[in-house]
Formats: sequence, C-alpha cells, structure tokens
Amino acid sequence: MRQFIVVGHDAPTTPDFSLSDLAGGAGRLDVLCRCINAGLFVSHGIREDVRVHLVVDDKYTVRFDGETAKRLYPTERAVASRIRGALEATDDAIGHQPAEVSPGVELYRMGFESTLESAARDGTVVELHEDGEPLSTAEPPENPIFVLSDHHDFTDAEATLLAETAAQRLRVGPKVLHADQTMTVVHNWLDTGGYETY
Amino acid sequence: MRQFIVVGHDAPTTPDFSLSDLAGGAGRLDVLCRCINAGLFVSHGIREDVRVHLVVDDKYTVRFDGETAKRLYPTERAVASRIRGALEATDDAIGHQPAEVSPGVELYRMGFESTLESAARDGTVVELHEDGEPLSTAEPPENPIFVLSDHHDFTDAEATLLAETAAQRLRVGPKVLHADQTMTVVHNWLDTGGYETY
Repeated sequence: MRQFIVVGHDAPTTPDFSLSDLAGGAGRLDVLCRCINAGLFVSHGIREDVRVHLVVDDKYTVRFDGETAKRLYPTERAVASRIRGALEATDDAIGHQPAEVSPGVELYRMGFESTLESAARDGTVVELHEDGEPLSTAEPPENPIFVLSDHHDFTDAEATLLAETAAQRLRVGPKVLHADQTMTVVHNWLDTGGYETY
Repeated sequence: MRQFIVVGHDAPTTPDFSLSDLAGGAGRLDVLCRCINAGLFVSHGIREDVRVHLVVDDKYTVRFDGETAKRLYPTERAVASRIRGALEATDDAIGHQPAEVSPGVELYRMGFESTLESAARDGTVVELHEDGEPLSTAEPPENPIFVLSDHHDFTDAEATLLAETAAQRLRVGPKVLHADQTMTVVHNWLDTGGYETY
C-alpha cells in the first residue's frame, strides 16, 4: 500500500465554508483537494492501494481510502464537499474511533503525530527533502508513507518529528513543487519501479 | 521553452457556463483547468518558460503564457474564470490575430491543426504513447511540445496528424494518467535533465 499524509495548517475545522471560495475563505482547502486528487486518481479510475490522510489544523485527520471510495470525482469542488461532510461529523469521532462519513472517507480525532505514528506501523516513512537522495538512484520502499505539507513549510516540531520517524530521505528534483505535483511524481516513480522497469 | 497543447473535445465555446459546475455543465472544463495548473505553476511561483495551448472544440485555442501571466491562481475555478473571459472575446480574434484577454492569456481562432503547426515551428513535437520510449532512457529535446488529450482519446484524425508531426515518441509509465498528471511527470523529467542531473 502507498500512503500519503498531507498536513493542512490553515484548513478549516468546521464545515461552514463555501465550496466556491476554497482558496480564500476555506483556508487554501483547494491545495488539499488537489492532493486527494493526485493521490487517488488515474485516468478513468482510482488507485485502490492508496490512502491519503489529510491532517486538519493538527486536530482532525480526514482519511480517504482508494479501496473503498465510491462516487468520488477528481474535482476540487467534489473533494471539498467530501471534506466538508467529514467536518460535519466531528462529534461522532471518539478517541481513535473514526466517524465514517461517506464510502472510503473517515474522520479521525487525531493530529499529525498520532496520524504519523499510526500510519508508520504499516510501512516506511519517507521524508521529501532537498538534501535527500534523487529518486532516480533511490530504491523504492515496499509500503511507502510520504509526508507532505500544504502551501506552508512544516513547523519546526513537525519537521523534527518527521526526520525522527523517516527511514528514507528523498528529493524529487531541483524545483519546489506543489504537494499534489510531488505526489504525482512519486506515484510515477513507484509505478515504474524506480524508473527501472516499465 | 516548453509547450503543451491540450485538446479539449467537450469544452464550451461560449462563456455561458457556471464556475460552480465545471465538471458537468461546462463539459469537463475542470480537466483542462488542471492542465493549465500543472503546466504553469510550481510552489509559490510560475514557470516563465512555458506556454499551454488549450484547443477548444477544434475551433478556438486559449493560450496561457507563463512569461506574461499575472494575477493567475492555481485553482480550477480561477483558471476557468480566465477561460470564460477568453470565450467572451471570440469576436476580437480575426484570422491568426489573437484577442488579448488578460495578462498572459490570448484567444486564437485556431483549431488543433493550426495550433500544432504553429507551435511546431518553435520546437520538437513529442507524442506520448504507450509504445513510446520510456522517459528514463530517452533524451529530453531542446524545446519540447507535448500534445495531450482531455478525458477522451484523440480522434483518429488528431492521432494521425500528431504521429506525422511528432519527432519523438515517449511513454510515461504503465498507468494511464490524467493529462495534468502526465504534464507534471514530464516537467519533472525535464527539470532533472531526463532524471540524470539534479
């Protein structure tokens, strides 16, 4: 399985935002929606072996699971609508028990640290860093967990935690890409067996 | 310069569509907006050496130029608003003279063939094809022009024209990706000098 944890620093924790103003009033939720899109979708299909965890303001995590997702469409607005639905169900998430919001979408009352620790039990945490090994020479891990930030850098505490948890440090190239673009690049790297076999 | 030509088969030719229904009433304009986004933007910046040509229903072409674009934001809705603005100016595009719509955005009264021929004068047309050479072994051309289709396949006529014009045939991997995802992958391939140097 491939997992992505995307940390949304400005994302709303309540559902009272407009789907028509994702980049403004909804705290750049557009960025996070594009990450869901990049993580889950290929042309005319969904990647069943993928989970994307959206950490919302270090308070909640909305988890999208490619295996069970249904009637999910790859537009910013459609994905934002699902996130809004999840934020309507925060009272139903108790402890580590999630609220099941819609097929393939669950809301957890968990911040970044808990989400990272939980995901790390099922694979290898990868840090993406400008000083990392280039993708073209690195060996793809078996069950990678990539951790990305929204339009802001990681906080110092997040960066420290990530560096401590990560088993591999990679860089995608000389340009600083958007989180969703980075996800698309690493998917392709994994799809092609580390650019070796396809 | 890097150029992308994206063929929109269902895209609207008139501006009377809702920005809140891009995937439905606007003929999957969401797909084309994501291509503009993937073509032009990196994190906190724009790629100045890029042009993206959106062919609309083989009738018009909306050209986005990274060098002159201003106040353009990477959300589907913001990009769709610019396309709508272009489609309001169709009467101002006469012959091969474009209508200048907004900074970095022009509308041409040109379909796929004219747009391809015009772009091909400034570089090497690349066909993306499942039987092409893998990116990891191919040599990046100097001024590539990548040609992509929206959520539909190319028509037979388009595919024939493209095969005749293309100097290089590449494949991005074993998965069929969305057009915007493919653009992100080839940008990274070019950024890293064909996965060689970075």
